Amino acid sequence: MPPAPLSRSGKSRRTTDSPISYFIQKALETPGLISFAAGLVDEGSLPVEEVGAAVAGIVADPLTGRAALQYGSTQGLPELREQVLQLVCDADGVRPSDVNLTADDVCITTGSQQLLYLLGEVLFDPGDIVITEAPSYFVFHSLLQSHGAKVLTVPLDEHGMRMDALESLLERLRRSGDLARVKVIYTVDYFQNPTGLTLAVDRRAKLVELARQYSTNHRIIVLEDAAYRELRFTGADLPSVKRFDPKNEFVVYTSTFSKPCSPGLKTGYALMPPDVMAPLLHLKGSHDFGSGNLSQHVASRLIASGAYAKHAEHLRNVYRKKRDLMVQALETEFRDFPAARWTVPAGGFYVWLTFDGIDTGPDGPLVPAALEAGVLYVPGQFGHVFDDTDSVPNNECRLCFGVATEDQIPEGIRRLRKACAAISAGKREKVKASV
Amino acid sequence: MPPAPLSRSGKSRRTTDSPISYFIQKALETPGLISFAAGLVDEGSLPVEEVGAAVAGIVADPLTGRAALQYGSTQGLPELREQVLQLVCDADGVRPSDVNLTADDVCITTGSQQLLYLLGEVLFDPGDIVITEAPSYFVFHSLLQSHGAKVLTVPLDEHGMRMDALESLLERLRRSGDLARVKVIYTVDYFQNPTGLTLAVDRRAKLVELARQYSTNHRIIVLEDAAYRELRFTGADLPSVKRFDPKNEFVVYTSTFSKPCSPGLKTGYALMPPDVMAPLLHLKGSHDFGSGNLSQHVASRLIASGAYAKHAEHLRNVYRKKRDLMVQALETEFRDFPAARWTVPAGGFYVWLTFDGIDTGPDGPLVPAALEAGVLYVPGQFGHVFDDTDSVPNNECRLCFGVATEDQIPEGIRRLRKACAAISAGKREKVKASV
Repeated sequence: MPPAPLSRSGKSRRTTDSPISYFIQKALETPGLISFAAGLVDEGSLPVEEVGAAVAGIVADPLTGRAALQYGSTQGLPELREQVLQLVCDADGVRPSDVNLTADDVCITTGSQQLLYLLGEVLFDPGDIVITEAPSYFVFHSLLQSHGAKVLTVPLDEHGMRMDALESLLERLRRSGDLARVKVIYTVDYFQNPTGLTLAVDRRAKLVELARQYSTNHRIIVLEDAAYRELRFTGADLPSVKRFDPKNEFVVYTSTFSKPCSPGLKTGYALMPPDVMAPLLHLKGSHDFGSGNLSQHVASRLIASGAYAKHAEHLRNVYRKKRDLMVQALETEFRDFPAARWTVPAGGFYVWLTFDGIDTGPDGPLVPAALEAGVLYVPGQFGHVFDDTDSVPNNECRLCFGVATEDQIPEGIRRLRKACAAISAGKREKVKASV
Repeated sequence: MPPAPLSRSGKSRRTTDSPISYFIQKALETPGLISFAAGLVDEGSLPVEEVGAAVAGIVADPLTGRAALQYGSTQGLPELREQVLQLVCDADGVRPSDVNLTADDVCITTGSQQLLYLLGEVLFDPGDIVITEAPSYFVFHSLLQSHGAKVLTVPLDEHGMRMDALESLLERLRRSGDLARVKVIYTVDYFQNPTGLTLAVDRRAKLVELARQYSTNHRIIVLEDAAYRELRFTGADLPSVKRFDPKNEFVVYTSTFSKPCSPGLKTGYALMPPDVMAPLLHLKGSHDFGSGNLSQHVASRLIASGAYAKHAEHLRNVYRKKRDLMVQALETEFRDFPAARWTVPAGGFYVWLTFDGIDTGPDGPLVPAALEAGVLYVPGQFGHVFDDTDSVPNNECRLCFGVATEDQIPEGIRRLRKACAAISAGKREKVKASV
């Protein structure tokens, strides 16, 4: 006799498998497949020697070795928090005191993903509202579903989240009395996952201004996910949204060592207002009372030795070349293709490809045709949520050039073109057959 | 003008600072203090060379180096899951197939603490009931408070959780109609934190039987926290509670590499039924989509090379000696002390000291007297919850011999005796004064 069934929590019942599990499984099962789907980092440039040297340095002295192998603190290694603060402030061209920040305002997390989760736990009750970009990072949407938060979206244009649309949405919520439920405005503001687009500098200031303006009875937090910031390969860095929050009141800035260094360290960080930090640390105490201490010591040593900055510079060259290969291949293969267009990101991992007239969705014809041709992408649909609308675009693809090799990139785009051609031919056949 | 206040979630409002934060802070602020409070591990025996060698081995080959520095999977490194399964089954003297387990039933977490949190998230809605030992691990109680779970407790005797009392409690809950809210029975069954007591073998079988018997409409999960199992220094290992769950239905077994190896790796693991695993992994996907991959590769290599087993053996000798020093010091200092008694643990880190007539609580006289004398303990009261009763014992101390050095242990106990004497003298003064 089978045992009685589990009685699961409401939160667990809201939490489903990742929408892309099927795609990851397919990638593993299909030999020879070129994957533009997984958001993994470039394999060949992982800092194997650098991490080896950092650990060798740590264990060379029993004192530093023991410090790295003992428990750390819930908030994270103090010297790493100082370094992170300096990194972000240097990038923004300010001193920490200019923006009312100290290392006490920095928390180290198990990747930036844990920060996204914890902040949600601090703020969201089921039914609360989070405003995201359309499209946005689909793992964040899964997390919001766990928390029972309601997602409302703001469209993007080539300069990122549209502030006029955000303002209209906030105004509409104010009028309907729903502003009280708005907790967070989320932006992936550098080379966005999934579109590769970057938020323009004037919109950064405006975003903080809107959060402040609509924080009438409670504070609306801007969650700035800067995971890809350090992987800019064209143009000058832009100041963070956090830079426009000089009193450290409205913006939580999060980033990670996963992209510009190594995902295996699973070390992220965040800067936030003190009254967000305190409850977040209480929850983190229950989660794990501190992220991996050895990894934090490794990250700290890589920054101190200069290896981190040098490696990030190397990665910018690696990914610039990959971006160029992908964009060139798209121009070659899709130049003559009716109404195909794509973003040309200035950093990060992602190109966003849009078609007219091809259904790229998980149940559409392109997914199987692409698999047949030996290439995998993430259907753009996963980046969208059904909010107030009853349909989302189903003609977009996220193409990640992070993990595919330089040889694979042009070949993968050729295969995608072949898959598109096969569908178009199939359509013509169908049209003929129905005539 | 200050910004509008945050509007925090119900969960965040239920989550408070750790009760022992004050004590940790005191320990940091007081030079020369001997701390029996922090549950840290012995500093001198941390496996600095072993971890150094493991990482050197990993980075020596670019392929293994890159594998360790890339993203891992949500469930954890497959080879480490195989090794963990074998470790636990070897300790229990069974083959995995005897107890219906494969590596698919193993999950790697950010310390065992994360497993405790995630399992709570899978199962608990506010108002659900968790049965724990009295006293129990206070960080688990904090976590239950976050989840809004109600704690009911079962007393311990020298053989661990009393099964007659557990059965009475379950029967009472059945009669009152509250059985439907009982989700978990939690036991720290090897050298319990905080008492050092171990669950007797016949009670292990009985515990699973009771869970099965009372799982009438939904399943009651036994959560076995075996964090200290590998640190046994007297007598033979006992089979796990999990060993008495041959179909893998009722027991979630969790343990960690923090105690028998290194807390800095922050790597724990758990074995659980498949229908617990699936929703737990969905939640872990939202938390972090996988714990630190480099740390998992290090743990796996330490096990494969034999360094892990060798190191655990070394630690058993280290902690046996520390236990002996503490127990000897207690005999020397408290032999003539009226009604002081203490446990003599067969493993782990903790001695449980009970007085008659001295208030050991956070607001009692012993805490400041001990600080004055230069020693710190954890008030036993923190291990208790106010469940159906309106009072908990306030005459107990948790003494951890994990982090104090061999020299500090006898000196710390001398200081504690001095503090007790000062209070007793103070009391006599008061009595005299009031006569």
